[in-house]
Amino acid sequence: MSSDHRIPVDEHVALTVAVLTGLGAPERTARIQGEWLCEGDLRGHASHGIRRLEVLAGRVRAGLIDPAAEASVQCPRPGVLRVDGNEGFGPPTALAACDALPALAAEAGIAIAAIRRCGHLGMLAPYVERLAAAGLVGIATTTSEALVHPWGAAPAMLGTNPLAAGLPVDGGEPVVLDMATGQVSRGKVLDHAARGEPLPDGAVVDAEGRPTTDAAAALDGAITPFGGPKGYALALVLEVLVASLTHTALGTEVRGTLDVTDPVTKGDLLLAIDPAAFGGPGAGVAAYLDTLRALEPAPGHGPVTVPGDRARAVRARNLELGVPVDPGTWSRARELLVDADRSR
Amino acid sequence: MSSDHRIPVDEHVALTVAVLTGLGAPERTARIQGEWLCEGDLRGHASHGIRRLEVLAGRVRAGLIDPAAEASVQCPRPGVLRVDGNEGFGPPTALAACDALPALAAEAGIAIAAIRRCGHLGMLAPYVERLAAAGLVGIATTTSEALVHPWGAAPAMLGTNPLAAGLPVDGGEPVVLDMATGQVSRGKVLDHAARGEPLPDGAVVDAEGRPTTDAAAALDGAITPFGGPKGYALALVLEVLVASLTHTALGTEVRGTLDVTDPVTKGDLLLAIDPAAFGGPGAGVAAYLDTLRALEPAPGHGPVTVPGDRARAVRARNLELGVPVDPGTWSRARELLVDADRSR
Repeated sequence: MSSDHRIPVDEHVALTVAVLTGLGAPERTARIQGEWLCEGDLRGHASHGIRRLEVLAGRVRAGLIDPAAEASVQCPRPGVLRVDGNEGFGPPTALAACDALPALAAEAGIAIAAIRRCGHLGMLAPYVERLAAAGLVGIATTTSEALVHPWGAAPAMLGTNPLAAGLPVDGGEPVVLDMATGQVSRGKVLDHAARGEPLPDGAVVDAEGRPTTDAAAALDGAITPFGGPKGYALALVLEVLVASLTHTALGTEVRGTLDVTDPVTKGDLLLAIDPAAFGGPGAGVAAYLDTLRALEPAPGHGPVTVPGDRARAVRARNLELGVPVDPGTWSRARELLVDADRSR
Repeated sequence: MSSDHRIPVDEHVALTVAVLTGLGAPERTARIQGEWLCEGDLRGHASHGIRRLEVLAGRVRAGLIDPAAEASVQCPRPGVLRVDGNEGFGPPTALAACDALPALAAEAGIAIAAIRRCGHLGMLAPYVERLAAAGLVGIATTTSEALVHPWGAAPAMLGTNPLAAGLPVDGGEPVVLDMATGQVSRGKVLDHAARGEPLPDGAVVDAEGRPTTDAAAALDGAITPFGGPKGYALALVLEVLVASLTHTALGTEVRGTLDVTDPVTKGDLLLAIDPAAFGGPGAGVAAYLDTLRALEPAPGHGPVTVPGDRARAVRARNLELGVPVDPGTWSRARELLVDADRSR
C-alpha cells in the first residue's frame, strides 16, 4: 500500500455513509459502519478498512444484510446479553452490546454479550477501547471463515479468530490487544501471491499441509496458527467458545463476512468486567508498563512496546496526515457510490 | 524422567498428606493439595507434581504458608467472588472458589473469582475440568514469578502466566486447554542445563536477549514467550489482568511459589459461564471436533488432537500403570516425611 495516498477522515467516513445510505441504511447506522471501516485504515489494517465496503454493499444488494435492521437485545440473566443483529451491519450491532454492557457490569461485576446474525465487526480494538475508556476491562473475540489449519493437518478448519482486550490503566493509556490467531492475514497472503513475493517461514502451508513460503501455494492451502500447537489450541478454544455461546457455526460452516452469497453464520462475544467490584483499579500497572517500555532493546530489536502502543501511534499519525488508502481501493469504493446512485 | 518408576495414586497422595498433616495441615486440606500434586505427575507435568512438595513444606516451616488456613470468600456483586487464601495452600483455596462459582453463574450467567494470598494452584486443568463437568465453561489464569522476557528485550519481566479453559461439549469429552505462555517451562530449562542438552530454537534467550539453544546460558537469560510478539502480548494482558483484579504484584515483584523466603504475591482468576443462560449447549461441537481428529495428518505429524485429548490419554494410562515419578524426586519427598516426623 502506498502511504502517500491519504484521505481526510471526514471524507473517508462520508464515502461509506454515502454508499450505505444510498443502499437504504439510516444515516446513523451508515456512520457507525463508516467509522469502523475508517478505524481499520487509520490503524494500518487495510483488510479491515474501506476495502470491505465492496462486500458489504454486495451483501446489502443480495439481501444478505438488512441495512435498516436494529439489533434485538435480551438480558436473560444479570450478567448476560443475547444480541440478535437481525442481519444488520456488524459495528452498530456490536456497539449496541458495547453500550449496554457497562450497566450490567456495574450490577453483576462482570457481563458478557453473545452476538449473532450481524455483519463483520471490523476492528475489535475500538470496542474494547470504548469499554476501557469507561473504566472497564473489555474482551472481545469472534469467529470467521475457516482459513487456518489445525496443527498437524492441511485443511483450513478454523477462523483467524481474533482476540482483543482492553485493560484500563490507572494514570496511563490502556493496554489494548487486538490480534488474529493466524500467523498472517488472508489479505497478506493474497497481496503476496499477486506480487509473487514470498511469505515468512512458518506462516502458511500448501494443500498437503507442508510449510511453504510460496504465497500462491498457500491459496490452495491454509494459514498456520500463530505460536504452533499452543496457538492452534487457543484458536480452537475461541472457535468453540464463540459458537457454543452464540449458537453459530463452526469451521467450514462459518460464512458471511467475505462472500456475497451466504447468510452470516459467525458469532461474536464481548465481555466487560468492572474493576470497582474488585476493590478498584490495580496499583502500579502504569509504572510496570513504563519499566517494560524503558528496557534496553535486545540486539536487532526496536524499543519494547506494550500492546496498543504501536496502533495508537500509527492512528495518531494518520489522523493528522490523513487516512492511508491504496488508490485502487479508494477508486473501487468510489465506484460503489456511482453504483448506489444508479440503483436508486 | 524414567517412566519405569511408578507410584500407585493412593501412595502418591498419601505421602503428601502425611508430610503436610505432619506440618499441621488438616487432613482434608492436605488431601486436596496431595491430589493436585498427583494430577501434575499423572499428566506428565513433573514441574507441577510432587517435586513441589519440598518448597511447600519449606514455606510452611518458614511461616509463609499457614497449613490450617481457610479461605475467606466475599461476594461483592452477583457475578464476583473475592477470595483471600489467608496464606493457605493454593488448591484448597482455588477449589473453594471453584465450588462456589456455579451458584453465581447460575444466577448471573457468568461469574469470576479473584484469588489472592494462597500458594501455587498447581495444574489449572482440573479446576476448569470440574467446571466443565458441571456443564459450565471454565477459564483460569494466574501470574507467577517473572521468567519470561518481553518481546525484544532480555530481562525476565513476565510470569509463564498459564491460560486454561474447559468447554463442555454436548455428547463428547470437554475441550480442555492448559498452556503456559512461555515457550518452555523453567523445569525444562533446568533439566537441560543440568544434562548439557540444547533447547529447541527460539525457546530461550541469553542475558543479552540473544536467542540461544544453550540451556545454561538461558539460566542467566529468560524464557521466550510462545508465538513471538503475539504470545508476549497475550502473556502481558494476563499479567496485568490478574494483577489488576486480584490486587497482587506485577513482573519481578511476583513471589512465593518457587521460594521459601517471601510472602506470596501472585494472583489467580477463575471464570465460569453458564451456557444455559445462552440457550443451552451449542450444537454440532462434538461432530466438529471429531472431524478435526479424523483429518489426514500433514507430512511428519501424528494424528490431529483437540486440546485435552493428549492429557486425558496420558492421565488414563498413568492411572492404570501408576504415577510416573523420578526416583530422586520421590526420595526427596519421602525425606520430607522423616523431617516432618522429627519436627513434631
